[in-house]
Amino acid sequence: MHNFTFHSPTKIIFGQGTTPNLIPELSDAKISRVLILTGGKSVYESGLHGKLVDLLNQAGIKHETVRGVQPNPRLSKVREAVAAGKALQAEAIVPVGGGSVFDSAKAVAVGVLSSHDIWAHITREQPEPIRAALPVCGILTLSGTSSELNNTSVISNDDTEEKFPFASNLVVPRVAVVDPTLQYSVPVNQVCYSGVDALSHVLEAYFESLDTSEVILEHCEAYSKAIIRCLRALPGAREDYNVRSELAFCSVYAHSGWASVGRPRRGDFSSHRIGHALSGIFDVPHGVTLGILMPNWMQYVYGKGLSHDTFARFAKAIMGLKEAPGNDFALAGIGAFKDFVRSLGMPTSMREVGVKEADIPRLAENASRTLPFGAVIPMDLENITGVLKQAL
Amino acid sequence: MHNFTFHSPTKIIFGQGTTPNLIPELSDAKISRVLILTGGKSVYESGLHGKLVDLLNQAGIKHETVRGVQPNPRLSKVREAVAAGKALQAEAIVPVGGGSVFDSAKAVAVGVLSSHDIWAHITREQPEPIRAALPVCGILTLSGTSSELNNTSVISNDDTEEKFPFASNLVVPRVAVVDPTLQYSVPVNQVCYSGVDALSHVLEAYFESLDTSEVILEHCEAYSKAIIRCLRALPGAREDYNVRSELAFCSVYAHSGWASVGRPRRGDFSSHRIGHALSGIFDVPHGVTLGILMPNWMQYVYGKGLSHDTFARFAKAIMGLKEAPGNDFALAGIGAFKDFVRSLGMPTSMREVGVKEADIPRLAENASRTLPFGAVIPMDLENITGVLKQAL
Repeated sequence: MHNFTFHSPTKIIFGQGTTPNLIPELSDAKISRVLILTGGKSVYESGLHGKLVDLLNQAGIKHETVRGVQPNPRLSKVREAVAAGKALQAEAIVPVGGGSVFDSAKAVAVGVLSSHDIWAHITREQPEPIRAALPVCGILTLSGTSSELNNTSVISNDDTEEKFPFASNLVVPRVAVVDPTLQYSVPVNQVCYSGVDALSHVLEAYFESLDTSEVILEHCEAYSKAIIRCLRALPGAREDYNVRSELAFCSVYAHSGWASVGRPRRGDFSSHRIGHALSGIFDVPHGVTLGILMPNWMQYVYGKGLSHDTFARFAKAIMGLKEAPGNDFALAGIGAFKDFVRSLGMPTSMREVGVKEADIPRLAENASRTLPFGAVIPMDLENITGVLKQAL
Repeated sequence: MHNFTFHSPTKIIFGQGTTPNLIPELSDAKISRVLILTGGKSVYESGLHGKLVDLLNQAGIKHETVRGVQPNPRLSKVREAVAAGKALQAEAIVPVGGGSVFDSAKAVAVGVLSSHDIWAHITREQPEPIRAALPVCGILTLSGTSSELNNTSVISNDDTEEKFPFASNLVVPRVAVVDPTLQYSVPVNQVCYSGVDALSHVLEAYFESLDTSEVILEHCEAYSKAIIRCLRALPGAREDYNVRSELAFCSVYAHSGWASVGRPRRGDFSSHRIGHALSGIFDVPHGVTLGILMPNWMQYVYGKGLSHDTFARFAKAIMGLKEAPGNDFALAGIGAFKDFVRSLGMPTSMREVGVKEADIPRLAENASRTLPFGAVIPMDLENITGVLKQAL
């Protein structure tokens, strides 16, 4: 097992009807003014926003709301919320939504306490490091990104078509309320996108290296199998609490850090990085980019950085296949994964989302701006182009 | 899945050669005076204490050391360390040792900041709740108790033969350095005791209820199997980093809180509670009490609170048995567990550690002082006596 440091300080409040439990967390921390951040209509139509506002009013906590965070969250909305947070003198940011809203909240948490424009912090063009951030204490309405407990955020610049991840331990949410029943109203296809995102968090750790303790591989396999099982069951189980709670739980766990301990690095997130370019330019949902890129990344690195044995273990332990003579069992596993993604009604090639061969250089150049990445094989412009061609 | 709150804020620094990584954690937190707490000779003979002292001196951090914490840690030593910590005006407690040293450090961390005697806090006779504690930032030299990342401590009162657990989120260690190589010099029998302790943390969560998500049961099974596999390998693998790191990792994980999420309660720790009485009165090592009590508790609750199906799943998934016609498969699983404990050279009955039938009322009365406990069946004097008779 390789050395690691593990730190996941978020308090997770998990289960049905747990929204009110957020309030004592704010009160106990003497927080008296919060900026709420939301997406579009759903948290208003469901009554969740109104319920939260009532609870805050009863507790004497002042609040303002900025609404309209979009998927692949935009810098313009972050800037709007930073200004609102400064005007309110907010003491905490309360995201109510999915990964995009949590990601935005993290940037806002930094921006409110900074005298610099937030984009400079995100792109690291600002020589001043991130020194402070407001606490982020939120309510999750769609599991998948694990933004509710990690230190990363990905923001898209509407002007420049750039999509950049940033990371700071200061923005790890302090409290995350995860009530699976709040996710019942999310359309099934979006739940699938998010589930594939969670699955990729486990698999991108798993594939980085099988050179770790057996128990770590086994728990990655258990979580991968569970996510696949839940997503397969989903169309008939939209309001089945057992399925929805297991899926939400796996998402929390997937990016908690446990999946990636004990490896030389913390995972190989090439599919995520190349996917950011795809969603940044073509506005493809994040989970869809992973459904396309994960199996094609596997196929590209098979025989280069990852051996037959690695994919054979994956085929058996996660995809549940039995080895048959005469077949390449590794390729069978990768093929079964692609079939699984397709069975969710999701594309497995870039052509299906409108990408043409001529777009590859632009996508590759965009993805290469966030180099270095790639642990299984170190990525460069050539390898990124190779993965993109495979994924076309 | 049942609702839960999960919060495990300890930063785990895991791996060989990680002792120096403790220092920046102290410096970054502006800690300038620490009280080191140790057991007997081993950390002096191994050079670990000397190395730590050098590192602290280089970093300009003042320190005092209190040595001599014993297994089943004593109140008298805690009181001595509280006095030393007050005199030093310590800003952190640095345990260097196993669970007993960490447990003591937690009590000292409370005691230094309290004007009351620490025993009053532990027994809750003190109406004033625990309001503050110094940070605990330590180096673990024997995995098993998971004291390095939980909120509990068990202290024995030398005068009254009482052994009491106390819990406060204020004493959860802030930082824990876990270097498996520091554990090579621990005698194999002690490593076994500690491994059985870690195993019981998973199993006491597992058995509380199988009414939770499949993935939670599967990860408990993976961790239980791994601990059993490592302990079986131990005699020939004392300095095998793969085995020792996997064992230490499982111990960290076992009591991190993940094993017990999603159940009606957080586990059934009856074996722990009754074991505390056994070690308090007969000075039996903590892990030995669990090796005796766990299988006998299983046998006692079989058919009362836990069904054939529960133990049959345990027999298959954890003990690796195959069902054979004509046998009680549940009893076969419990028997296999008892055999496993015995194969480690550990006793599986109280007679083997000198307990006589006439001692049972005294043990039962002592254990019953920490009631209520017991989730599978609620424990009372009658049930505690029943488990003790089974374990005789």
